[in-house]
Amino acid sequence: MSDTPFRIGLLGHGTVGRAVAELLPARAEAIAAITGLRPEITGVLTTRSGDFDEVVGGADLIVEVMGGLDPARQYVLAAIRAGKHVVTANKQLLSQHGDELWREAREHGVQLRFEAAVAGVVPVIRVLQETLAGAHVERISGIVNGTTNFILSQMAATGASYADALAEAQELGYAETDPTDDVTGRDAAAKMAILARLAFDTPVHIDQVSCEGIEAITPEDLQYAHDLDLGLKLIGTAERVPAGIAVSVHPAFLYSGHPLASVSGPFNAVTIESADITEITLSGPGAGGPQTASAILGDIVSAMIPPASTPEPRESLEVVADIESSFYLHLEVADRPGVLAQVAQLLGLQGASVRSVVQKGLGDNARLVMVVHPLLESRFYAAVELIAGLDFVRSKPRAIRVIEEEYQ
Amino acid sequence: MSDTPFRIGLLGHGTVGRAVAELLPARAEAIAAITGLRPEITGVLTTRSGDFDEVVGGADLIVEVMGGLDPARQYVLAAIRAGKHVVTANKQLLSQHGDELWREAREHGVQLRFEAAVAGVVPVIRVLQETLAGAHVERISGIVNGTTNFILSQMAATGASYADALAEAQELGYAETDPTDDVTGRDAAAKMAILARLAFDTPVHIDQVSCEGIEAITPEDLQYAHDLDLGLKLIGTAERVPAGIAVSVHPAFLYSGHPLASVSGPFNAVTIESADITEITLSGPGAGGPQTASAILGDIVSAMIPPASTPEPRESLEVVADIESSFYLHLEVADRPGVLAQVAQLLGLQGASVRSVVQKGLGDNARLVMVVHPLLESRFYAAVELIAGLDFVRSKPRAIRVIEEEYQ
Repeated sequence: MSDTPFRIGLLGHGTVGRAVAELLPARAEAIAAITGLRPEITGVLTTRSGDFDEVVGGADLIVEVMGGLDPARQYVLAAIRAGKHVVTANKQLLSQHGDELWREAREHGVQLRFEAAVAGVVPVIRVLQETLAGAHVERISGIVNGTTNFILSQMAATGASYADALAEAQELGYAETDPTDDVTGRDAAAKMAILARLAFDTPVHIDQVSCEGIEAITPEDLQYAHDLDLGLKLIGTAERVPAGIAVSVHPAFLYSGHPLASVSGPFNAVTIESADITEITLSGPGAGGPQTASAILGDIVSAMIPPASTPEPRESLEVVADIESSFYLHLEVADRPGVLAQVAQLLGLQGASVRSVVQKGLGDNARLVMVVHPLLESRFYAAVELIAGLDFVRSKPRAIRVIEEEYQ
Repeated sequence: MSDTPFRIGLLGHGTVGRAVAELLPARAEAIAAITGLRPEITGVLTTRSGDFDEVVGGADLIVEVMGGLDPARQYVLAAIRAGKHVVTANKQLLSQHGDELWREAREHGVQLRFEAAVAGVVPVIRVLQETLAGAHVERISGIVNGTTNFILSQMAATGASYADALAEAQELGYAETDPTDDVTGRDAAAKMAILARLAFDTPVHIDQVSCEGIEAITPEDLQYAHDLDLGLKLIGTAERVPAGIAVSVHPAFLYSGHPLASVSGPFNAVTIESADITEITLSGPGAGGPQTASAILGDIVSAMIPPASTPEPRESLEVVADIESSFYLHLEVADRPGVLAQVAQLLGLQGASVRSVVQKGLGDNARLVMVVHPLLESRFYAAVELIAGLDFVRSKPRAIRVIEEEYQ
């Protein structure tokens, strides 16, 4: 067994940092058998102790798990420029400064690995970079935020309100005290930006991702989802469209046969589609100290063996916002003749055709829930605005995207 | 763009070989951008044309997609000894001679890659070798044969008999004219041997895999599965047990929440469990020319960049056959008092406790279907043998493993 050390400097000592520091010694022997080098942590920088220059100077590889942009960006850049490999779990950093960092890594001949930045130990980064290297990816759909998936799963299972399900997620440690980044979809948007960058080989910044959170979802939405054999998830999508690519995060209904429909609780899952491969789905825990640390360990092992770099962008595709989608539309209307006809006519003028309708009486009023076939989002919302102005419409119409079942 | 060529020799020109020959030129530019080398096919050996020595001599890497043991083994060995990387889709070869080939590859400093040998483009080999390098895997469960999964899915969906569903699979090209290897579980057993070798770092030969096929499954089994909210799948399992590891292929019921329960049709899926990672599930098409060719392309790209070798086995664990399992037991009995009590007593003597029971009258007879909690298979079968001898039992008892829902 080799005793040549491979020195690892750790930046950050929160949940994930501590898990890395625990897991690495336990796996050092197995890793030495694979790589011929014995990994060991030679320096740790926390908010209270350690010196960055010393940690970097004494390391062959830096693990960045401090999070945030500052000073993480400066530290990662400095490590790369000092010729050190870097493994990071920092999705915000990569979704805002990824191409700068990847370029620096290429120029300095070091590896920058980041499996843990998206969907924890679910190996979507590696699969995109290696298994599908050179493949022509058409679309990526993902449940890439465990907090919101847990909340939606609880609402579906128990009929709880959004606020109650969020409170439960916080109690169980699935949501932070300030859940804004998660529930607004911004965390998922960062991850989708990174996936889109890799899949489509074009720079994508988080601000180019259209984003809608789950704060407005009601227990009723989930009840209807159930009645219609649909699941409601916060879905990130990155796909090719005629004018370029589209990247978004939205609540969306899934038919029960969709590979993401059965992903519940704090789990993450990503489906990658391409003509050549049909589709691959990867799922597993999206967070957690040991899980994330395992992803980081896999990256460390790969860095100890050989370089697999993120190549320079070869394309400069447009990032498109307005794409086709199927929709669920929920209206509270006066219960009188001709209502459905008028709604359907306004939809039809925008090219929206109705796929299915459910109507329920509520005293003088009625609830009209329908799913329309795919059309441009802008056209659908134009119809909804006109419908909202009709005198028999009693409350603000509710619209949610529906992902059609296109899988075998 | 680099014009330095990377020369690929192709052994075999069936469905997969032709798909590789088609896909590679279409992806050559993307691959050149990643690797700095332009891949091209410089030689092809078919059953009718080509010379092995010429194909190997003129290549940097050999793709072996001829199948079978002979002459595939000699060819792969010769290529390795000539210092060429090898990418193979040959599960029978690896499950019988893998350790010889991996050793030769290590000794000659070349890569031997085989993603396409298990579950097609589903990246389970790469995830085990790279993402989970150094992880302590506890169990792998897989649907790794698309033919049998298609047949069982059809039987469940339509109530068709095994024979009719097989005939349909043959018509649609999901089953071969001679389906023996698939329906007996031997194809799945080869794949599980390879996965177990990687996961547990111990040599595993296909003959050490206990194996049961799907030929005896009836539409009634699937009807009950449906009534009990279970799915019936051909499941491969490789797991640590106190005395070593156990590797098996069996028809098994899955509770609907199991990550493999929703995998239907010709798809494959593999769930990997470990304390650190909880579980990861990977799914996608398990066969098909372009899909398999995509997996091979991913391996070629990796071989063009850097070595990731399969290390020498570090353990010599026992391969254990008798392990604990939960079971479904189906009895046709005379409809008279005391029958259930006697059955339960015989089960109890072997330590089997009943989890759920369904009884249906059939004139003078009754059908008794139950699920028992996990116990050693040998003890369960001992109880079944005694039950079969009871005077009120009208036909041979039917027993099928049940995989418990252990996931969140």
